[in-house]
Amino acid sequence: MKTLIRNVHILSMDENYSEIKDGYLVIEEECITKIGSVSELNSLTLDVDKVIDGKNGLLIPGMINTHTHAGMIPFRSLGDDVPDRLRRFLFPLEQYMTKELVKASSNYAIAEMLLSGVTSFCDMYYFEDEVAKSCKKMGIRALVGETIIDMPTCDSPTPSGGYAYCESFLEQWQNDPLITPIIAPHAPNTNNVEMLKKIVSLSEKYNAPITMHVSEMTYEITEFQEKYNQTPIEFLQTLGYFERDFILAHCIFATEHDLDILVNSKGKARVAHCIGANTKSAKGVAPIKQMLEKNILTGLGTDGPSSGNTLDLFSQMRLFANVHKTYNQDRSLFPAKEIVRLATIGGAETLGLADQVGSITVGKKADLTLIETESVNMFPIFDPYSAIVYSANASNVDSVWVNGRQLVSEKKLVEQELNEIKATLYHEMATFVTEANKVN
Amino acid sequence: MKTLIRNVHILSMDENYSEIKDGYLVIEEECITKIGSVSELNSLTLDVDKVIDGKNGLLIPGMINTHTHAGMIPFRSLGDDVPDRLRRFLFPLEQYMTKELVKASSNYAIAEMLLSGVTSFCDMYYFEDEVAKSCKKMGIRALVGETIIDMPTCDSPTPSGGYAYCESFLEQWQNDPLITPIIAPHAPNTNNVEMLKKIVSLSEKYNAPITMHVSEMTYEITEFQEKYNQTPIEFLQTLGYFERDFILAHCIFATEHDLDILVNSKGKARVAHCIGANTKSAKGVAPIKQMLEKNILTGLGTDGPSSGNTLDLFSQMRLFANVHKTYNQDRSLFPAKEIVRLATIGGAETLGLADQVGSITVGKKADLTLIETESVNMFPIFDPYSAIVYSANASNVDSVWVNGRQLVSEKKLVEQELNEIKATLYHEMATFVTEANKVN
Repeated sequence: MKTLIRNVHILSMDENYSEIKDGYLVIEEECITKIGSVSELNSLTLDVDKVIDGKNGLLIPGMINTHTHAGMIPFRSLGDDVPDRLRRFLFPLEQYMTKELVKASSNYAIAEMLLSGVTSFCDMYYFEDEVAKSCKKMGIRALVGETIIDMPTCDSPTPSGGYAYCESFLEQWQNDPLITPIIAPHAPNTNNVEMLKKIVSLSEKYNAPITMHVSEMTYEITEFQEKYNQTPIEFLQTLGYFERDFILAHCIFATEHDLDILVNSKGKARVAHCIGANTKSAKGVAPIKQMLEKNILTGLGTDGPSSGNTLDLFSQMRLFANVHKTYNQDRSLFPAKEIVRLATIGGAETLGLADQVGSITVGKKADLTLIETESVNMFPIFDPYSAIVYSANASNVDSVWVNGRQLVSEKKLVEQELNEIKATLYHEMATFVTEANKVN
Repeated sequence: MKTLIRNVHILSMDENYSEIKDGYLVIEEECITKIGSVSELNSLTLDVDKVIDGKNGLLIPGMINTHTHAGMIPFRSLGDDVPDRLRRFLFPLEQYMTKELVKASSNYAIAEMLLSGVTSFCDMYYFEDEVAKSCKKMGIRALVGETIIDMPTCDSPTPSGGYAYCESFLEQWQNDPLITPIIAPHAPNTNNVEMLKKIVSLSEKYNAPITMHVSEMTYEITEFQEKYNQTPIEFLQTLGYFERDFILAHCIFATEHDLDILVNSKGKARVAHCIGANTKSAKGVAPIKQMLEKNILTGLGTDGPSSGNTLDLFSQMRLFANVHKTYNQDRSLFPAKEIVRLATIGGAETLGLADQVGSITVGKKADLTLIETESVNMFPIFDPYSAIVYSANASNVDSVWVNGRQLVSEKKLVEQELNEIKATLYHEMATFVTEANKVN
């Protein structure tokens, strides 16, 4: 199968930010095999199976959501503005999460991500086997990790049951073209030290990346300060976490010394920055300026639908620009181009996928997002990066490809019916809704 | 003409935040004449000309954009991330704004506002007669004010030419059902004192509201400090501005004493808060918490398309929530309900329109926005206000009415062709684009 996409403004997001204004691109099987200018195309004979007119849209690498919880759609819009929601709403209601509900929620969350131009994501929650299967069904690329936490969970009656789940999950999902199985301890303060050590060994055994919520909560910082006179990052360093591929979600309270630890990991430690979730919950603003100055690899994450609240990166990019410029009192900091970078190749670097995806480069996998420029909010465009960061929203995504397969066309899923996915989720949510309304 | 809208979740935004989950609403001529529950409707015989199925959407009062510049669409995405853009880009390029260009831009900007659920706005720029005519053509409600500034402008070869324009504009647009003519001095530091005094007299003569950029620029603050040892607000008070209906845009640097001046105006001074423009430009965060605690009337504004960058209030509501919660380190501050209030009845109060619009109340004008809940980002909805603030975007607006007239249906303009409006704007922008590309 060979597809030609023509009449697109290609923002390659490669190291030179190469652009082709009147661009075309050829997909063969799962890869990008040709990129060029439409004017040259006229003199070529391209033997293709399918031609797609991009209608002067902006073609960017598929966006990469570096931290989310696809199973948590049922929580969206529940208790958004209440303090300590994690312990008041989330933990108590998680007992009503079933395998079927996680499956239905994952299908829905992946539909939402695809429709908003996300082509890869990093997930942690429960029943992650269902999340991985849902990724395969929907066709999206993902790092998938079962949560390990020192309490009973919806998929384990005993504390830390996620460890055994993880090991079998790692066995099962080795060498999948779309799924990278990972290990997902919940947080430094919600696991005991023995388990935190075992997780490092498990990561070594399977050469599996780890992701974890780190430096997100003020009480987490206080606890490590009191117990060990260390930051959570300093503590995790003593356990060997920074010798592993390690995706740290949040890092809001990372200190100067913490950042040095990340730097010293030589790219093994990367940061999933969730500006929407962090600011909505008034937790604070992670020191991203400092991280990027130190070349710490960083991507954007939506966090779960109960925190984020949508799973698209447009809202995150807009919040990122406005919050960080004001926080650092510098309008010229993080020009739009650099923010689109964070949402694409930056995310790929964070997830360890940059050799496969994250830029529009011949030889890379065809993970692509086409943003239409016909809607009222998308004119004029003097700077396409500005248009993406400051004007566009998730509804401007017209088409999406993952691994060469077109999954969204004209703002609709190609292979799935959204209404059916929603109806199934609605059905599976019945008990959850009853219980949620008691707490709400 | 009598229209019935049924199957809507009505968020009235009245003083009790009254809601009807399975609601209906009747519009007769320009007014709302009946509101109730669909279950009661079954037993009624309603003699209506048109029935609209709201498909379980959220029906809210039309949103109110308290500060923008409709003529400035040509500037969108131009120099977004450069310092001192006002003096480097905006002022120099404004000489290429023509009457025809402002007209074309206004039609486009109003189309964008209507499509995103905005039904009233407050505008200041040049050739404002064209803006008012455009409002009439498009059917939107507005406060319209010609800018007065102490330099030559695109519609006046001599400084402060806006004053004479304003006076004739005020004469011409008295008693229009949709247009309120106002006076729009640019800023305290861009007008001379004599002119600032004459403006107060003009406001008295025509009983016309004034709008002005106030306390927006650090150099503005410094200038008044050095010249008068006063804040701009203190200075304006000495000139009598706080005895007039006065809409202050921005107020980023308002001091405690400034706020007391606003309080003492007894509701005559109101604030148009532009969180998107203020934070994108790294100017700062206006003390909105303190203003609302003092019951200072406040609404949301997008600022112009070169600053905001879109003209919808969804992006402003999201930024408002996240920025103010974090700025005040309080997650429970400004629950979603209060933010929807600012975008609707709060805006109406700010523009002096609250007796006519801003809430869904029998007897008020039918200015309404229907937000669909079928798109992927709008499920589930435990809290409709949360869904509007944290999940929705401008593309979720399905239908819009202004003054009883349906202007948007199924996400499209009813009476206008967006493509034609865009083609005309594109044509009128030719010279502007050439000059912009020289500066860019």
